[in-house]
Amino acid sequence: MRKFLDHNFLLDTPMAEKLYHEHVKHLPIIDYHNHLPPNEIASDHQFDNLSQIWLNGDHYKWRAMRAMGVDEVYITGNANDREKFKKWAQTVPYTLRNPLYHWTHLELQRYFDIDILLNENTADEIYDHTQEKLQSAEFSVQGLLRKMNVEVLCTTDDPSDSLEYHLQIAEQDFQIKVLPTFRPDKLYAIENPDTYLRYLEKLGSQVGFSIDSFQDLIKAAKNRIEFFSDLGCSLSDHGLEQLYANPLSATEASDVFQRVKIGQPCSAELTNRFKATLLLELCKMYHQKEWTQQFHLGALRNNNSRMLATLGPDTGYDSMGDFSQGSALSSFLDQLDANNQLTKTILYNLNPRDNELFATMVGNFNDGLIAGKMQYGAGWWFLDQLDGMERQLNAVSNMGLLSQFVGMLTDSRSFLSFPRHEYFRRLLCNMIGTEVTNGLIPNDEKLVGEMVQNICYYNAKKYFEFDSITSKR
Amino acid sequence: MRKFLDHNFLLDTPMAEKLYHEHVKHLPIIDYHNHLPPNEIASDHQFDNLSQIWLNGDHYKWRAMRAMGVDEVYITGNANDREKFKKWAQTVPYTLRNPLYHWTHLELQRYFDIDILLNENTADEIYDHTQEKLQSAEFSVQGLLRKMNVEVLCTTDDPSDSLEYHLQIAEQDFQIKVLPTFRPDKLYAIENPDTYLRYLEKLGSQVGFSIDSFQDLIKAAKNRIEFFSDLGCSLSDHGLEQLYANPLSATEASDVFQRVKIGQPCSAELTNRFKATLLLELCKMYHQKEWTQQFHLGALRNNNSRMLATLGPDTGYDSMGDFSQGSALSSFLDQLDANNQLTKTILYNLNPRDNELFATMVGNFNDGLIAGKMQYGAGWWFLDQLDGMERQLNAVSNMGLLSQFVGMLTDSRSFLSFPRHEYFRRLLCNMIGTEVTNGLIPNDEKLVGEMVQNICYYNAKKYFEFDSITSKR
Amino acid sequence: MRKFLDHNFLLDTPMAEKLYHEHVKHLPIIDYHNHLPPNEIASDHQFDNLSQIWLNGDHYKWRAMRAMGVDEVYITGNANDREKFKKWAQTVPYTLRNPLYHWTHLELQRYFDIDILLNENTADEIYDHTQEKLQSAEFSVQGLLRKMNVEVLCTTDDPSDSLEYHLQIAEQDFQIKVLPTFRPDKLYAIENPDTYLRYLEKLGSQVGFSIDSFQDLIKAAKNRIEFFSDLGCSLSDHGLEQLYANPLSATEASDVFQRVKIGQPCSAELTNRFKATLLLELCKMYHQKEWTQQFHLGALRNNNSRMLATLGPDTGYDSMGDFSQGSALSSFLDQLDANNQLTKTILYNLNPRDNELFATMVGNFNDGLIAGKMQYGAGWWFLDQLDGMERQLNAVSNMGLLSQFVGMLTDSRSFLSFPRHEYFRRLLCNMIGTEVTNGLIPNDEKLVGEMVQNICYYNAKKYFEFDSITSKR
Repeated sequence: MRKFLDHNFLLDTPMAEKLYHEHVKHLPIIDYHNHLPPNEIASDHQFDNLSQIWLNGDHYKWRAMRAMGVDEVYITGNANDREKFKKWAQTVPYTLRNPLYHWTHLELQRYFDIDILLNENTADEIYDHTQEKLQSAEFSVQGLLRKMNVEVLCTTDDPSDSLEYHLQIAEQDFQIKVLPTFRPDKLYAIENPDTYLRYLEKLGSQVGFSIDSFQDLIKAAKNRIEFFSDLGCSLSDHGLEQLYANPLSATEASDVFQRVKIGQPCSAELTNRFKATLLLELCKMYHQKEWTQQFHLGALRNNNSRMLATLGPDTGYDSMGDFSQGSALSSFLDQLDANNQLTKTILYNLNPRDNELFATMVGNFNDGLIAGKMQYGAGWWFLDQLDGMERQLNAVSNMGLLSQFVGMLTDSRSFLSFPRHEYFRRLLCNMIGTEVTNGLIPNDEKLVGEMVQNICYYNAKKYFEFDSITSKR
Repeated sequence: MRKFLDHNFLLDTPMAEKLYHEHVKHLPIIDYHNHLPPNEIASDHQFDNLSQIWLNGDHYKWRAMRAMGVDEVYITGNANDREKFKKWAQTVPYTLRNPLYHWTHLELQRYFDIDILLNENTADEIYDHTQEKLQSAEFSVQGLLRKMNVEVLCTTDDPSDSLEYHLQIAEQDFQIKVLPTFRPDKLYAIENPDTYLRYLEKLGSQVGFSIDSFQDLIKAAKNRIEFFSDLGCSLSDHGLEQLYANPLSATEASDVFQRVKIGQPCSAELTNRFKATLLLELCKMYHQKEWTQQFHLGALRNNNSRMLATLGPDTGYDSMGDFSQGSALSSFLDQLDANNQLTKTILYNLNPRDNELFATMVGNFNDGLIAGKMQYGAGWWFLDQLDGMERQLNAVSNMGLLSQFVGMLTDSRSFLSFPRHEYFRRLLCNMIGTEVTNGLIPNDEKLVGEMVQNICYYNAKKYFEFDSITSKR
Repeated sequence: MRKFLDHNFLLDTPMAEKLYHEHVKHLPIIDYHNHLPPNEIASDHQFDNLSQIWLNGDHYKWRAMRAMGVDEVYITGNANDREKFKKWAQTVPYTLRNPLYHWTHLELQRYFDIDILLNENTADEIYDHTQEKLQSAEFSVQGLLRKMNVEVLCTTDDPSDSLEYHLQIAEQDFQIKVLPTFRPDKLYAIENPDTYLRYLEKLGSQVGFSIDSFQDLIKAAKNRIEFFSDLGCSLSDHGLEQLYANPLSATEASDVFQRVKIGQPCSAELTNRFKATLLLELCKMYHQKEWTQQFHLGALRNNNSRMLATLGPDTGYDSMGDFSQGSALSSFLDQLDANNQLTKTILYNLNPRDNELFATMVGNFNDGLIAGKMQYGAGWWFLDQLDGMERQLNAVSNMGLLSQFVGMLTDSRSFLSFPRHEYFRRLLCNMIGTEVTNGLIPNDEKLVGEMVQNICYYNAKKYFEFDSITSKR
C-alpha cells in the first residue's frame, strides 16, 4: 500500500523513479503558454489568502462546486473569502479521481509544505496557515515563480494591449523571462459588429491611426506584431472551434469589412471566410518573424446563456465540441506551406477523440528544416489530467516522434499551477521507466534519460530559442 | 493463476476486495431504467426453461449467434427451445472477451448456483438443471427480483399505455417498488403519418378526447404525465439519434401537425424541428413535476432492412452512429435552463468517442441547487462491458465528479440481468481500490468506502427520491 | 528488468508465453493483403543493401526523418544509399515509442540475426553486415518470404494490370501462393477527366474493346474480374474516404460518364453518386464470384500539395480524416444485403475514434450463413502498433466475436515487414494469457490455445478458402 502523493507519486518502477529524481526533477520550467496576469507579476502582487489566489477566477473549481450543489453565493457571489474557502474544502473530498484532487494537494505540498488533506475539518487550519505564509515576501507572485524554478513564462495578450506591464517587468531586475504572446482572437471577431467596432477603436488608438479598411486592419496587425516582437514576443495563439480554409479575395474581404463597419452582421459563412482570410495573412507575418503559432481548437464555449449574462465568459460554462477538423485544417496549413510560409506550429485539441487525427496531421507538414517543426501540443484544459496527458503522449508516440515533443505548459490563470509540470514529468518518467522495465524500451539510461530531459526542458529551449530573445524596448 | 469468476472476480487488490465485500456487496439494487415487461411482474410469471428466459428477445445473444454462422431457424425461427439452447451453448465458448461470456456465467452462478462452464457438452445438463429450478416458486419473476435484493425498478412505458399492470402490481403485497417511466418516442414519430395517426387514436382513447391539433397533443401529453405521475412515475426517457434545437413557432407546429393529420409526410428538417418543439414542451412539464429526464442518444437503428421486414425492430440490427451531438445538445439544454425549466437530467451516449464531450456538456448546466443534477449516465448497450464502463467512469471522473454519479442500471429486457449491478460494483471497487493501493487516492477506508456506497446505492436513493413516492391510485 | 526484445518480448505472463511459444509461433503466415510488387517476386529480386530494401518507398520512415529535421536529399533525394542509411540510423533512437523502433529491431533480429541496436555508431557495421547477407540466395525476395514461413500472399493490383508477373510466378516452382487482389479505385476516379480518360484507354487495350459508355465500363469491369478470378484472385479492395450510398439511375450514370468522356468534370455530389453506382455494381459481381470485398476507409490523402507536386502520392503526406461514416456505410451494405448480394466483407478504418462504430456496424449484416462473414479488419496504417492493434482487438471483442477474427496482414510494400505477424501474435497471446492469469478467462489451455491459433491462422485459412484456389491459366 503506497502512501498518497509521496516522494514517488506516480512512479511505479525503480527506473521511473530514477528518471524522475535523477534526470528531470531539477530542470527549470519553460512555461511557454499561460494566462497569468502581467500586472500582478509587474507589481509583485501579494495575495491575502488562499481563496484569493486559488478560487478567484478558477472556473475548474467552480464547476466542481456547482456539481456538488454549492450555492453560487459561495462561488462567485458575496460570501467572504473564508466562507468560500470552506465550501471549497467541503467539496475537495468529493473530487476524488478528478484532477482537482491531485492538483489541490500537490499545490498545498509544494508551495506550503502542507501534507494533510483538505476537507471540512482541516479547512480553517489550512486557511490560517497559508494566510500567514502568503503575507511573507517569499510568497509574492515573483517569489512563487522563483520557488518553482521557472526560467521563462509566456503570457497571453491581446493585440490592442499596451504591454505596459511587460515593459515594467523588463525594467525590473527579475531573473525570470516574462514574454507576451500575440493572441488576436478579437481582431477577427466580426460576429458582433458593435463590440468589434469598439475594439477597432481601441486598437486604432494603439497604432495611432484609424482602422477604416481591411488594408488598415492588416497594417494595424503588422504594426502590433512588430511591437510585440520588440518586447520579446515570439509566439502567437488562437482560440477557434475549427479552422476555416476558404479565404475571400481581397475585394471580398474589404466588402465584408465595410459592411461590419456600418454595423451590419454577416452570414456565418462570410464571417468564417473573413476569419480565414485575415488568419492566413497573420500566419504569413508570423512566418516572416520566425514565430511559433499556436492553435487551440475544439472548445464549445458559453453554453449557458443565463450564466453568460450574469457572470460573463470564462466562468465555467464551456465544454468540448465535436467539430469537423481534418479537411479544413489540412487545407489551411497547406495554403501556407505551398508558398513556404508555414512557420513552426503547435496544434492543441480539446476533444480527445481527435487526438490521433491531430497527431497524424502535423506529420504532413514537417519539412526537414526544423526538428519537430510541427507539434501536436500537450493535453489541454479538460485533458490536462493523467488520462488525457497519457493519451496525448501515446498519440504523439505512435503517430510521430515523442522525442521531439516540446512538452508541458500550464495554460493557467493561477500562480499556483506550476506543479503541473512536475505532474507531467512524473507521468512521462513513469511511462518510459515502466516500458524499460517491461522490455519494450532498451535498458539504456543514457538514451532514455536524455529523452525525458529533452521533453521536459531542452526541446522547448531549443525550439522556442528564448535565450536569443531580448526586449528591444 | 486466479480462478475464473471466483469470489474475488475483477478485484485485483486487497483494498478492492475490502471495498466490494465489506462496503457494497450487500446494498440493495435501485434499477432506475430497464425494459422489463410489467405484465410478467404482475402475473409473477414462471418461465418454462432457460431458453425462454434467456434467449427470447435477447438480441445481444442473437447477434453473437449470427456472427458464428448459426442459422436463423435456431435464433428466431421454429426450432424448439432445447435446440435453440444447444446452439447458444455451442456459441458461448466463442464469445470469450465479449461481455456475453461474463454475463452468461455470472447469471448461471448467481441465480442457479451453477459454476461449470456452458458449452456444447454441458448444455443438456444445464438445461435440465435450470428447467427444474425454474418450476419452483423461488424462481418466479418476483422471486428472481427478490433474490437479487432489488429495492426499486423502473420500467419503460409508452404514454398510451394503460399502466394496468403497474396498477395490478401496486395492489399486490410485493415488497419491490415497480414504477413506470414515461417514454414518449411515439408521440413525435411523425415520419410515418399512417403509423402516427393510428398511435394518436390509441392515445386519444386513453385520454378520452380526439387529438386533432398540436394543442390537443400537448394537452394529451400533459394528461398522461399526470396519470403516470399518479402511479409513481418520476422519470422520463427518450431515444434519439441526436437532439434538435431549433423549435418551430406554435403556428408552424400546428401546420406541421395538420399536414401529418391528412397523411402528408414532412421534410426531415421540418420533422426534426417538430420533434424539438414538442420535446421542449414535454421537458418543461417534467420540470414542473420535478421528474428526472433521460436521453439515450446516438443509436443507428434498423440497419438491415431485409431483417426489419422479417423480424421487426429490436432484433439485433442496430449499431452506433456518428451523429453530431455537441452544438444542438447544448442549445437544447440551454433553452430550458434559460427560463429555469431544466429538470434533473441524465444523458446516455452510445458512441464512446463522445464520452468526454458528454461528460463536459453536463457540467455546463449544474446550477448549484441539486447535487449531481446533471448526469452523464452509465455505459449503455454496446458499452455495458468492462472497457465501456471503465471509460464512462473515467470520463465522469476526469471531467466531473464521480462521487455524485447515480450509478448503474440494467437497461435490460431480461429478468436475469441483475448481476450487472454486481459487475459494475466489482469494477468500481477495483478501480478505486487499485488507485488507493498505488498511492493515487488516500488510504482512507472511510472516505472511499462511503464513496463507493454512494455510487452503488445512496446517490440514486437521494437523487430519485423514490422513498417519497407512493402510487396515488 | 526485462531485456529489450528478447524471447518473451510482449509476453507478460507464463500463460502468454505458453500460448505464443507452444500454440502459434510455428503457424504459417497467410498475408491476405499487402502491396508487395509482383515483378520483384517473379524475378526473385536481390536487393543491394538495406537502404534499398528498407528505405526506398517506406514513407513511414520518411515521415520520421522529416520530423527529425533531416534534409529531403537524404530521404528521397540524391544522397547515396549509405548516406541515406546513416541518416536513418541517426533517426532510429529518436523513434522510441513509435512502432518504427520495434519494427526496425525486430526485422534486424528476425532476418539478419542482428541484436544490437541501430544508431549512428552501429550504422556502418549493420550496413556492411546486411549488405553481405543480402547478396546470398537465401536473401532473395523469395528466400525472404520462405524464411518467414509465408503460405499465401495477396498483392494489390489495378484492373488494367496485365498480371503478367502473377502469371510468371504461377509458372514457377514457388511453394508460396501469390495471388492478385482486384483494386478498382481508378475505375471510378472521374474527378480528373484527363487522367481518367487515359486510364480508360489502358483498360480498353486490356479488354480488347473501346470503353465508350457506362455499359462498356461495367462490361470491362466484369471482364477483368473474370480474368483476375482465373488467376486465383478472390479478394477485392477499395480505398475511399467514406462510402456513398445514393446511386444514380442507369441513365444518370450514363450521362455522367459521357460528360467525363468529353473532359468535363462533375460536381462533387455527382462524382460521389457515380462512384456509389459503379461500386454497387462491382460488389454484386464480387458476390457472384464469392469473393471477399475489402474497404479501407477514412484516409485523408495528399495533404501537402507542394510535396505532391514534387514527389507524387504515397510519399508520407497522408493522415487521418474525420469523415462521417455510419449512415452511408449502413445504407451501402444494406442495399447489397437487401437483395442477398452482400458478399464476405472486411472493413478497415483509419481513425480509431470510429473503431466501435465499425465493430458494431459489421454485426448488422451477419446472416448466419458464413461464420465471421462480416469482419472489422486489423489495425491499419497508423494504427498498426501496440495501442492501435489492442484497441481494434478490444472493439472486436466487446462488440463482436474475437474468436471469428481473420487476423493480421502486413499491408506493406516491404519484403521485410512479415515480423508484424509475429508482433500481432505476441500481442494477442499476451492479451489472452494475461486475462487467463487474472481470472477473466477460464484457465483452459485447449479452449484459449485453439482460439489464438484460429485468429492467427485457421480462421483466415477457412474464411478465404485459398486451398481451393488454383490459377486457371
